[in-house]
This record gives sequence, C-alpha cells and structure tokens, in this order.
Amino acid sequence: MSSTVGQVIRCKAAVAWQPGKPLVIEEVEVAPPQKMEVRLKILYTSLCHTDVYFWEAKGQNPVFPRILGHEAAGIVESVGEGVTELVPGDHVLPVFTGECKDCAHCKSEESNMCSLLRINTDRGVMIHDGQSRFSINGKPIFHFVGTSTFSEYTVVHVGCLAKINPLAPLDKVCVLSCGISTGLGATLVAKPTKGSSVAIFGLGAVGLAAAEGARIAGASRIIDVDLNASRFEEAKKFGVTEFVNPKDYSKPVQEVIAEMTDGGVDRSVECTGHIDAMISAFECVHDGWGVAVLVGVPHKEAVFKTHPMNLLNERTLKGTFFGNYKPRSDLPSVVEKYMNKELELEKFITHKLPFAQINKAFDLMLKGEGLRCIINMED
Amino acid sequence: MSSTVGQVIRCKAAVAWQPGKPLVIEEVEVAPPQKMEVRLKILYTSLCHTDVYFWEAKGQNPVFPRILGHEAAGIVESVGEGVTELVPGDHVLPVFTGECKDCAHCKSEESNMCSLLRINTDRGVMIHDGQSRFSINGKPIFHFVGTSTFSEYTVVHVGCLAKINPLAPLDKVCVLSCGISTGLGATLVAKPTKGSSVAIFGLGAVGLAAAEGARIAGASRIIDVDLNASRFEEAKKFGVTEFVNPKDYSKPVQEVIAEMTDGGVDRSVECTGHIDAMISAFECVHDGWGVAVLVGVPHKEAVFKTHPMNLLNERTLKGTFFGNYKPRSDLPSVVEKYMNKELELEKFITHKLPFAQINKAFDLMLKGEGLRCIINMED
Repeated sequence: MSSTVGQVIRCKAAVAWQPGKPLVIEEVEVAPPQKMEVRLKILYTSLCHTDVYFWEAKGQNPVFPRILGHEAAGIVESVGEGVTELVPGDHVLPVFTGECKDCAHCKSEESNMCSLLRINTDRGVMIHDGQSRFSINGKPIFHFVGTSTFSEYTVVHVGCLAKINPLAPLDKVCVLSCGISTGLGATLVAKPTKGSSVAIFGLGAVGLAAAEGARIAGASRIIDVDLNASRFEEAKKFGVTEFVNPKDYSKPVQEVIAEMTDGGVDRSVECTGHIDAMISAFECVHDGWGVAVLVGVPHKEAVFKTHPMNLLNERTLKGTFFGNYKPRSDLPSVVEKYMNKELELEKFITHKLPFAQINKAFDLMLKGEGLRCIINMED
Repeated sequence: MSSTVGQVIRCKAAVAWQPGKPLVIEEVEVAPPQKMEVRLKILYTSLCHTDVYFWEAKGQNPVFPRILGHEAAGIVESVGEGVTELVPGDHVLPVFTGECKDCAHCKSEESNMCSLLRINTDRGVMIHDGQSRFSINGKPIFHFVGTSTFSEYTVVHVGCLAKINPLAPLDKVCVLSCGISTGLGATLVAKPTKGSSVAIFGLGAVGLAAAEGARIAGASRIIDVDLNASRFEEAKKFGVTEFVNPKDYSKPVQEVIAEMTDGGVDRSVECTGHIDAMISAFECVHDGWGVAVLVGVPHKEAVFKTHPMNLLNERTLKGTFFGNYKPRSDLPSVVEKYMNKELELEKFITHKLPFAQINKAFDLMLKGEGLRCIINMED
C-alpha cells in the first residue's frame, strides 16, 4: 500500500485563477478521499471544449479559483470509506457525470442521467461534505464537474469512475472519458443499420466520433455538414463519404440532403448545438423511419421549432447525454471496442504536450486546430 | 364462383352529394375490379371522425359527390388481374392507407407509409386508371381514401386489404380497420413496460384505444387528460386509473403530471391533434427515458415548439401513422389479439344502426355521444 494513503498529497496542478487568464501550474494540497471517494493519479488528460467554455466563463456562474479538466485517465492511489469496487492500482477513467447505481435513472435501462451524480457545473466541491479536496496553503481551490483532471492527483466520487482493462493504453483511451464516447454513443443510440445513410452536423471531435460510430455500424453513406470546408479533408479519415457546406446553397440544408438521398437520410446526429442545425438535422431524416439524435448543447434561450407533420410522418427525435452511456456499467465495454480494433482512437489524437505547456492546448483549441491534444502529466 | 364476377353490380350506397348535407341512400353501379383491385361486399362499417371531417369539407378540397366510409369489414366478391393473395370469400378489413410491398417504405421494417398507397384524401379515383368504379346512371361518384365503405359493394386496391381470420366476428373487428388500431399501435410503439406510467391526451375512441394498449402492456398508472370531465367515468372501463382536466389547474398540465409522477410519466400518447396538447404530451414525460408518441393530426399552420434541453435530457419524441401497422402484414395479428381475448373491442362499440339510418351515426358523432357506431349493411 502506498505510503501516501490517508495523507495530504502535495503535487502540481494547473489552476485557473481568473476567467480567461492562462492557467498557472501551482503546488497544491490534495486531501485524502472521504466517504465514497477515490483519490487517483492522473497520467494523461486531454482538453475538451467544455473546459474552455467554463474557463472563459461567459454566461455561466464564474467559480474561481478552480482546477479544470475532465477528459482523462489515471490510476487509483487510495480509496475512502465505503468504496469496495476499486482498489489502489486500478486503471480508471474519470467522468463528468456519474452512476450511483441506486437512483431511478441508474435503475432504468434507458437512462444515464443519475440523480445523485448528474453533471453539475456550478458545484465546485465534493457532495459528501460540501468541501473542496484541493487547497493552496489551506485556501480552497474549487473542483470542476467532479473530476478536475488538470492535476497530478485528484479526488473523485466512486460513481464517476469507470474501471477499465489495465492493458488499455491510458494515453489513448483517456479521450473516451468525454467527447469521443459522446459522439460515438449518440450515433449508436440511433441504431443505423448496415448500408444506411447518416448525416452528421459538425466536424469537431464529437461530430467525427459520431461519424466513427456510423462507420462502425456499416453505414454506406456518411454525409458531414459543416460551415468550415477546411475540415472536410480530415473528415475522410473518419469514413465520411460526402460533405455539405450550407453556405454553398440558397435553400435549407435539409432540402439539399433530401435531394441527395431520395427523401432524406436514415439517421442524423447533431453535434454543434446551434438551433438551426438541430432543426435541419431533424428535418433531413427520411419520413417513415428517420431518427435524429441531438448531442450539441444549445443556447439557453433557443427554441426548437418544427411543423408537427414532420413528426407525424413517423420521424423520431431524441436527445442524448454522454452517448447514453452509464459511466461505470458501459464505459469499460467502449474501451474494449478500442482494444479489439473495432474503434479507432489514434486519428482523434492530433497533438501531444507536456503538462507544463497546458496553456498551449488552450491556444490550439481556441484556434480550432486539431482534434484532441493529449497532455502527459509526467512529462 | 359468384355470378356477379366481371359484371357491374347494382347496390345501395350512401352518397354525400354536398358538404355537410345528409347522405342519400342511392342505387349505384359498382364496376368490376381492374388490375390489382378487389371488389368486396361490405358487411359492417363504422364511422370515424375523419369521415365527418371530409363530409363537412371545411378547409380541404371538396370532392363531391362522394361515397365516404373507411372503417369496415367485408368479404371478397371478385378480384382483378394480378391479384393472387385474395380469392372470393376471403374476409378482409379495408384500410385507408396501403402496403404495396415493393416501395422503400414497405421494404423498411420501420415504416408503414407506403409510397404508392399512402393515404390520399384529395384523390377520388382508383390509381390504376384514374377512374371511379362507382356511378349513378353512368355519372361517376368519387371514392374516399381508397375504401368508400358506405356502400354494399366497393372496389379497393389489393394493397389496402388485410386478409383476416375468417372466424373473427366482422361486426367487432371492423373497428380495427382505422381508429382502434391507430390508438393501440401508438401506445405499443412507445413500448411501455409492465408497471410503467402512461399519460393519454384525449378520450375519444383513439385515445381510449391508446389506453387499452397501455392496459395490455401492463402499465400500472394510466393518466388520461381531457377537457371534458364527463368522459372520465367511461374511461375507467379502459383501465384508466387517473384523470387530469387541464381546466382545473392554473399551471401547465405537464407540470401537474410531473408532480403526480415524481418527474414525469414513462410514456405519453397524444390523440387530440391540438398543438398545445402535443407540447404538453412531450414535456410531461420523464427525463432520461420518457417517450412521447404523437397521433392526432394538427392544424396546417401549427408549430411544435419546445426548449431543446427537453430533448437533450434524453426524452424521445416520435409520431405515428395508423399505429405504425403495415395493413397487410400486421393487421391480421391485431385481429388475433382480439380473438385470444388480449384486446377488448366490445367496450368501444356503443351504438348499432341499420344502413338506412346512417345519418343518425353522423348525428351521434357530431354530438360527441358514444365511441363507435356499427352500421349493419344488411339490416
């Protein structure tokens, strides 16, 4: 057993002191895990738009100083009272939402929106005692979505940790802890069949993961819709067969897609969060059998509008959250999809940086360069 | 073989000469069936709101003179060229929509919206030659939705006929040819599980058939929503356990239902076609797993509006048409549900009338009295 068990660990963390200002690598104190909590050593973390969004703190409650980061992989250092499923040394993916296994959502086969551990972006503390486990000279530093992976060590509720195959390379499967699973799962929720057509709205990492889901399902046509034509070449690696840039047409993109596909695609997945794209994604599916799945998170005041006949003509519209995956129950099998070479993760990883250069990862994302930048915490 | 084969049959039919005027029982000529057509003797027909809607001809293209009627049961008299699935004497349910078995919809396991034979309310003729098979003194009388069952004999495309168990009592199963299957199938599409909660909007025959679907699926709570409290007592026969009259509350009915059910019902079915009810039916289902199915046909200008987060929180919204049943492939098994006493049809049949009194059936429906009035064509 590690000599750090039960002790405060002093380690490096990238602290966001103020909205939009570069993170500062600080030495922080990480308290031992309390009831139902786990302390883990983060080996790799990547950066997701959600980190940048809450770092910029435009329009949400600013919670600072804070340790951001939620897409990562690590190894259990020690566990708190009541934790029986994990032991030190287990390989885990921390997840921004959780699975308590006890609420109505966890007991439902259909939901992954755990009542206890569902994502909460305003809360900067642990639910057990309303306290932070991070501090600098005794002054608390807030958590982020229960994960705070921009730290060499972090404390996470056991319900937010997926125990995975210890043979899985953590520098690859860390991307499954958020964005890639979100996109992949969304497409699989839509159940495209072999030979079907799938439209994907948005060519970021989530959208390309949705395309990857369509490729895995054997879709014969994967039509990507994006306003940025420079992304089209890259998207071919993900099985995308056709591209539509709405800017190239005077009519609504749903009409363009309907003409390309004799009435509409079999499935669509919306990954931008723009309300017009959501409506287009719904209206571009074929009547009789089309299914549209929404992933992107919209503006607070956005209103989804459509003529109800679009629904009555037997189209289905549904939303997903984290690809409908229950973090503890389902994520290990997504890792296995990578291990058995069904799912390709390497093509999502476009950059690698040492922890000391984490602000460069923010720069890359702000410039829209690349897909995922893996940050090596030990480098 | 009947001596009428290949001959014009002279028989009684109730002709709608003008919008909103009482039908007139006339002697009509019914031409022999042409390619892919079947002539059948109607034994029982019932009346559905759609007949009344097109009889009133408010807001649609008026097609007169016309023989209305589409919910019925009969026996094949003769078949036209190319018809191999049916022979004289077969018991059949005519259906207002069809199944050609050859188009993309018919080949899809998910759709029943046949490209060739999908409901067409404007067309008053047969698709083979653009002619009517009905006439009076040689002057054509128009068909209605391919069925025109207010006639002792009618001609129907073979794709719009479900061949059923000859032991099934036609005076009961005739109601499966439209409304009851529509409501029943809508609920079954939503796949409620045993012990689940289901909200039904609208307590007409379709809504009560939706409740019957929930009862058959083993729902433990069936909550009916209607503005007319006088219907609540009758609804108990259909397994309805609770009633909500939106008029009794100052807040939106979706909030009332969410409070009654700890966050929302598992499934909902909307049978009124009012846009506000559609929105309420969607927003009253539980996040994480709720499924709302729309059945009622809205006003042309209606717009469905909701906040996209209602979708992203893992609710599903879908529309159905004729309960998602393929007329030829699926309807025989719905008849079997009645034959094996799983489905109860008697409680839908509140009135019976001889053909000569068909206008009384229109009066009953206009007054909102009863559910289904069976018209005996031979009485």
